[in-house]
Amino acid sequence: MSKKIGKRSIKAGLPPGSLVHVGEKKNDITKITVVDYDEKDFFELKTTSIDEALSARRSAGIRWINIDGIHDTEIMKSIGGNFGFHPLVMEDILNTEQRPKIEEYDGYLYIIAKMIYFDEKLNEITTEQVSIILGKDYLITFQENKDNFFTTIIDRLSKNVSIIRKMGSDYLLYAIMDLIVDSYFLVLEKTGEKIEFTEDAMILNPNPKTLRKVHGLKREMLYMHKAVWPLREVVGALERRESYLISDTTIIYLRDVYDHIVQMMDAIETYRDILSGMLDLYLSVASNKMNEIMKFLTVVSVLFMPLTFLAGVYGMNFEHMPELKLKYGYPFLLLFMAVCFIGMLMFFRKKKWL
Amino acid sequence: MSKKIGKRSIKAGLPPGSLVHVGEKKNDITKITVVDYDEKDFFELKTTSIDEALSARRSAGIRWINIDGIHDTEIMKSIGGNFGFHPLVMEDILNTEQRPKIEEYDGYLYIIAKMIYFDEKLNEITTEQVSIILGKDYLITFQENKDNFFTTIIDRLSKNVSIIRKMGSDYLLYAIMDLIVDSYFLVLEKTGEKIEFTEDAMILNPNPKTLRKVHGLKREMLYMHKAVWPLREVVGALERRESYLISDTTIIYLRDVYDHIVQMMDAIETYRDILSGMLDLYLSVASNKMNEIMKFLTVVSVLFMPLTFLAGVYGMNFEHMPELKLKYGYPFLLLFMAVCFIGMLMFFRKKKWL
Amino acid sequence: MSKKIGKRSIKAGLPPGSLVHVGEKKNDITKITVVDYDEKDFFELKTTSIDEALSARRSAGIRWINIDGIHDTEIMKSIGGNFGFHPLVMEDILNTEQRPKIEEYDGYLYIIAKMIYFDEKLNEITTEQVSIILGKDYLITFQENKDNFFTTIIDRLSKNVSIIRKMGSDYLLYAIMDLIVDSYFLVLEKTGEKIEFTEDAMILNPNPKTLRKVHGLKREMLYMHKAVWPLREVVGALERRESYLISDTTIIYLRDVYDHIVQMMDAIETYRDILSGMLDLYLSVASNKMNEIMKFLTVVSVLFMPLTFLAGVYGMNFEHMPELKLKYGYPFLLLFMAVCFIGMLMFFRKKKWL
Amino acid sequence: MSKKIGKRSIKAGLPPGSLVHVGEKKNDITKITVVDYDEKDFFELKTTSIDEALSARRSAGIRWINIDGIHDTEIMKSIGGNFGFHPLVMEDILNTEQRPKIEEYDGYLYIIAKMIYFDEKLNEITTEQVSIILGKDYLITFQENKDNFFTTIIDRLSKNVSIIRKMGSDYLLYAIMDLIVDSYFLVLEKTGEKIEFTEDAMILNPNPKTLRKVHGLKREMLYMHKAVWPLREVVGALERRESYLISDTTIIYLRDVYDHIVQMMDAIETYRDILSGMLDLYLSVASNKMNEIMKFLTVVSVLFMPLTFLAGVYGMNFEHMPELKLKYGYPFLLLFMAVCFIGMLMFFRKKKWL
Amino acid sequence: MSKKIGKRSIKAGLPPGSLVHVGEKKNDITKITVVDYDEKDFFELKTTSIDEALSARRSAGIRWINIDGIHDTEIMKSIGGNFGFHPLVMEDILNTEQRPKIEEYDGYLYIIAKMIYFDEKLNEITTEQVSIILGKDYLITFQENKDNFFTTIIDRLSKNVSIIRKMGSDYLLYAIMDLIVDSYFLVLEKTGEKIEFTEDAMILNPNPKTLRKVHGLKREMLYMHKAVWPLREVVGALERRESYLISDTTIIYLRDVYDHIVQMMDAIETYRDILSGMLDLYLSVASNKMNEIMKFLTVVSVLFMPLTFLAGVYGMNFEHMPELKLKYGYPFLLLFMAVCFIGMLMFFRKKKWL
Repeated sequence: MSKKIGKRSIKAGLPPGSLVHVGEKKNDITKITVVDYDEKDFFELKTTSIDEALSARRSAGIRWINIDGIHDTEIMKSIGGNFGFHPLVMEDILNTEQRPKIEEYDGYLYIIAKMIYFDEKLNEITTEQVSIILGKDYLITFQENKDNFFTTIIDRLSKNVSIIRKMGSDYLLYAIMDLIVDSYFLVLEKTGEKIEFTEDAMILNPNPKTLRKVHGLKREMLYMHKAVWPLREVVGALERRESYLISDTTIIYLRDVYDHIVQMMDAIETYRDILSGMLDLYLSVASNKMNEIMKFLTVVSVLFMPLTFLAGVYGMNFEHMPELKLKYGYPFLLLFMAVCFIGMLMFFRKKKWL
Repeated sequence: MSKKIGKRSIKAGLPPGSLVHVGEKKNDITKITVVDYDEKDFFELKTTSIDEALSARRSAGIRWINIDGIHDTEIMKSIGGNFGFHPLVMEDILNTEQRPKIEEYDGYLYIIAKMIYFDEKLNEITTEQVSIILGKDYLITFQENKDNFFTTIIDRLSKNVSIIRKMGSDYLLYAIMDLIVDSYFLVLEKTGEKIEFTEDAMILNPNPKTLRKVHGLKREMLYMHKAVWPLREVVGALERRESYLISDTTIIYLRDVYDHIVQMMDAIETYRDILSGMLDLYLSVASNKMNEIMKFLTVVSVLFMPLTFLAGVYGMNFEHMPELKLKYGYPFLLLFMAVCFIGMLMFFRKKKWL
Repeated sequence: MSKKIGKRSIKAGLPPGSLVHVGEKKNDITKITVVDYDEKDFFELKTTSIDEALSARRSAGIRWINIDGIHDTEIMKSIGGNFGFHPLVMEDILNTEQRPKIEEYDGYLYIIAKMIYFDEKLNEITTEQVSIILGKDYLITFQENKDNFFTTIIDRLSKNVSIIRKMGSDYLLYAIMDLIVDSYFLVLEKTGEKIEFTEDAMILNPNPKTLRKVHGLKREMLYMHKAVWPLREVVGALERRESYLISDTTIIYLRDVYDHIVQMMDAIETYRDILSGMLDLYLSVASNKMNEIMKFLTVVSVLFMPLTFLAGVYGMNFEHMPELKLKYGYPFLLLFMAVCFIGMLMFFRKKKWL
Repeated sequence: MSKKIGKRSIKAGLPPGSLVHVGEKKNDITKITVVDYDEKDFFELKTTSIDEALSARRSAGIRWINIDGIHDTEIMKSIGGNFGFHPLVMEDILNTEQRPKIEEYDGYLYIIAKMIYFDEKLNEITTEQVSIILGKDYLITFQENKDNFFTTIIDRLSKNVSIIRKMGSDYLLYAIMDLIVDSYFLVLEKTGEKIEFTEDAMILNPNPKTLRKVHGLKREMLYMHKAVWPLREVVGALERRESYLISDTTIIYLRDVYDHIVQMMDAIETYRDILSGMLDLYLSVASNKMNEIMKFLTVVSVLFMPLTFLAGVYGMNFEHMPELKLKYGYPFLLLFMAVCFIGMLMFFRKKKWL
Repeated sequence: MSKKIGKRSIKAGLPPGSLVHVGEKKNDITKITVVDYDEKDFFELKTTSIDEALSARRSAGIRWINIDGIHDTEIMKSIGGNFGFHPLVMEDILNTEQRPKIEEYDGYLYIIAKMIYFDEKLNEITTEQVSIILGKDYLITFQENKDNFFTTIIDRLSKNVSIIRKMGSDYLLYAIMDLIVDSYFLVLEKTGEKIEFTEDAMILNPNPKTLRKVHGLKREMLYMHKAVWPLREVVGALERRESYLISDTTIIYLRDVYDHIVQMMDAIETYRDILSGMLDLYLSVASNKMNEIMKFLTVVSVLFMPLTFLAGVYGMNFEHMPELKLKYGYPFLLLFMAVCFIGMLMFFRKKKWL
């Protein structure tokens, strides 16, 4: 999450449609997975050759091509040319610093989404751009991740005669969107636990370390918020059926995904409000502590300053100080000091400073 | 209210429509209440067997099935299959961490609402999910509570020849929504009393304990706000008659429920503003107290420091200090000290520090 | 304004349309005023009997029935039955803790509004619910106040051959709404004067008492805001001519009332901003005062601490302290102390602490 | 700007259409300027007699009547009667405490706008209400100012054969609106300069006086904001061509005025944000200064307290204090004190308090 | 960025369409570049004579005229007259203090945009107004910059047989808008780096200098926000195809520019939130530091005050003080002092002040 905006500068001035890879290169070799399936058949092909991947289909149904590693501009050009995608689409796929969005082109939908996961090594929330192109009978996914994120869906496609095999490419899109939204829930739960933990720490012992944690969590929530908001727009646009590529049956499922996102945004807002409340509480508690400290200092100062002054007076070396010669001068003074001391204590008690 | 977002993670990656119960299991046995009624007849059946519950109707009118305890996925499957509900609906009913919503399906409306009550044992506001399916001549309610929440409505159905017996299933839905909204009013009144009590305490004696109470109340109001907002959308959608299942007559009643929710939101907003104002007041008062303490410390320090210095000077042991030998040196010094003391007192009075 | 939300709890669970009086009972006897008027005639009847009030009209024009005191549910039932009002309307009239709203029913409009006045005895802003039902040739007003609020309108109806006698019942509604909005202006002016007075006090002498006043005024403005907002919706709905009961001519007059409300909301917003600015100013000034006090304490402490230390050194009783025996030791030390003192004064002056 | 809301109370309860002058009476005599012009001719008449002013036109073109001084209700009645204006329009013209608005009546448009200027004598921003009635071939302006504000427009009408002589009354309205909006720019520029000046003062020497200036400027901006907002609505309504009285050609010019207002609102928002930032900065700087002062006090106190204590110890008069008799007791103690002193200085340096 | 609003005052009262140059004069001579191109041909002409620039086209395709330096009102009049532009358009081009906007006129579109760059000399973000007029087969750009900003586009037009040569004038407009938006990205990246750098400094060592930097960055972001917002409206209006001058093909490219702006606004919002968070953090940390300092002062004061008092007591010169004569009085007192000292240390440790 360290790079907030993409290094778009390296592209400034280039003509549109220039295929330049923007972002971190996470993969060495581009791995391609091709899945052909219909209600009866299921074929899976893992390859690194784009020609092999674009070969003839082995079923009459849906073809799903998943590209792992998008830095190879040659492969990108082949795919773009083969399917006839718009140059801007290809340019956007290569730029991994995009905002989630949905665009309708002639004959296909182009969707950018962001998966999210907690990177244990970096100890921060990491995002991963997924580009999806939905055609009538095909779906192409592009990502940069080392591990194939979609294995659970491929498993579901292969193993059981489940609903997904009977449906069109739009249902596959739904399955992918659902998986992506689930990735947000996992991060949100983790952060939620951290927030509750920090809240308890804040109530028991508010210190600057906890404060810094709260600020860190607030910032994480800010990123979550910024990430979920455009995702909601994307799924909302899909669900409002703005494309003929999405069937009525799938709309109902997408509505479900949309509800999950709304629920998540609600939770994020709640967490943000809670964190803000914690900061307010911290400031109030700190100001209160300050008052306590100041009261203590004031009480002690006020108790001893007059007494020290009195002792100073009778430590003076004047030749003519009649009190010094009195027999009971000393005990009398001590008594007087004690009376002053107790009197001031009572004064402070009355003022509720003690 | 400790679990802010549902533990959706246990479902991540599962295909849609998987019936998994999400939430706390509050009931051991699933209790089913079936009420068949029309203008003339009223039959009530309490059972634990789903087959018995789904048996033939005993009146030509409305059938209301209330399910207490939704963890038994087998029973859920039977009901879903019998009425032909969409898999996603059944999945949502089992997930008790949903946001209130309304969805129209072919032939029936699916509504999720949240009842709210103050749990004396946990000393916190607790919510309880109620799922409602409204068909043309039936209504099914799902909840997880041990005590049947709807007894007052069943009483009204059984005892008097009231308006409810003459109306359709949509009016029954209204009666249930009205009951749910009333549950919010009860909690809001209780919290309102607590707020007023805390406000008085804040004005009389602002201390950190009261501050923490204010923060607690602010948070309760945050939850109330988050809970009421989607409820308003649900009732608003019903009242705008977005479904043929809702008749004109019932619309007028739903408008009334809607008004109550708007009134409640108004009260919640007012309470939130009042609580914010109380926090501001606390900070101002605390900063003011600090000023008082500092003034006091400063006054005492400034009064005694010069005097102590003077006493220190005449406590020095120089051999040649002519003042020490003066006959009236001591009383003269005391007089000078008194003059300084009174002068500074007057200075502070002029500065309004005393 | 002590009861922020109505004690709706006493109605929880009751069937809709139950006539239960919610609110304070301010009147013992229900006083009914019936006014029949057209361009030529004017008849006024004051009675306590509902039967007499519902007797035959004495003119072909408009009938206005004003009910003072709505706690008598029998009278309410008679009126509701006589005119055929919806049960929910009658229920709402009895509940004096409603939010201003407007509802169109078959053949009549139902309006809830709130008058506002400053209760000298309670020293707080008090509201008074007015329910209005507008029919084609009649208008019924319900209120709970002891003094008939509408005497000025009745006077206008009786005395002069003014425009109001020539117009329909919708114009009478306008006259009443205008009177209600005027009641807000009176309160707003009074509060405005208080705000300006408090602002001057804040600038001259910011103290906690003024601060508390500002908080009180802020809260009053909060209530004003909450009261005016729904009123604006009501008049806005009337003015947008959502009913055939409102004629084109009257629309122009209602637009005028609407403008007054918008102007009032503007003033309320301005006052709220001013009050917020005053709180900010108070905090800044308080923090500034603190700085002044601390500076003063620091200056005095830093001036006297080293001097007192020096005096302490030469008050020690070591046998071998050569300085003590010097002839000019004492005046030299005094000189040195004076130099230190002046040096530090100059240092503080340079630091702009003095 | 001392009267935030109009003293509407003096009108409470009066029937609508009562002509009562609300506001300050700035003029003794009502001065009327009548301008008749078309492409060829231009006639100007200055009079105080309303009959003369309403005499026959001297050109076939546009007639512009400008009324300076609106307190004379007789003159107002004559005009209202002569042109057949709605009673509410005449009432609004007399009430100079209106919010800018636009209203369409049968055959004419009624516009209220506010000019703004900086009153050097009162040292505050002052507003001046201008009422404009636009008919097909006439335009009437009402104001209360002593100096005719519109002389530049009359000059343009008289001297050159400019575009304004060829256009209709709607273009004259545009010229007036343009002049009014320009009056806002002049004030905004002046305030902008004051803000920049204050900002520099804030950065160089943040003191309470500057703080109070910032608060004053913040409040001026609040009034500017409140004044411009409704003006934008008025010009926006004109420009969206909601009236047949506004021609297509003039729309383009009004769009230009609208752009100027939007630009002005932008600048006002920016200024408000800058002022808020300055207040935040002040608080931060003040809190920082406090820290500096406290550090200094603490350092000095901590340096001298232990030393003073040591000196006190060896000032005690015990008979048996062996150190006092040591030959090098005194220099050794001085050395020890110096070591303590330097040690603590180093400690504070390490803590970055010095 | 020192002049926040244009010095519009110099134009107050002038009739509309007066050609007055508002803004800084950056160029001495007006340089004109004329580019005529179609798919086959490309001609470029650099001149300072407007007559030469307006001579006959040398290709059947698109003509692009770029004017560098707009202060010469004569040249402006020639162009305005030659193409028949509206007087307000010419007036707006000369006023370089405009807000970005788009206006459709009969046969051409008029667009105002702002380029942005970081001026190294002034060390601040500087904007540069670009006015664009798009006709069916021509495009005219006006700017005040010394260096031709559009050289990269002219290069693309001249060198390669790229897409831009085959497209219409609307595509050229797109290329220019893309270049302008890229200029924002460059500044945003630079500022983003500064923010991250400052954030690290804030966490390591929060001091007033860093605080001032944060305020400066906050203000830069405020300007960025204000600059991007209207640009988004302009491109949004173009992309929603509100003009027949924009073809379907170009719309897709403009959508891409729009996405970039939205992404940029997102980044700006994120930066603003981060900067706000940093200010909050600073205040919290400062208040915490204050607590630390106060604790330290209090601990030291409380430790030494009673001890100094004790020493003072035994420094008194009473004749009858039996303790002074005790053989072990002195060591006993020292022991007692040590016990007090350690006791208080333990007390502070328990209070967690040490």
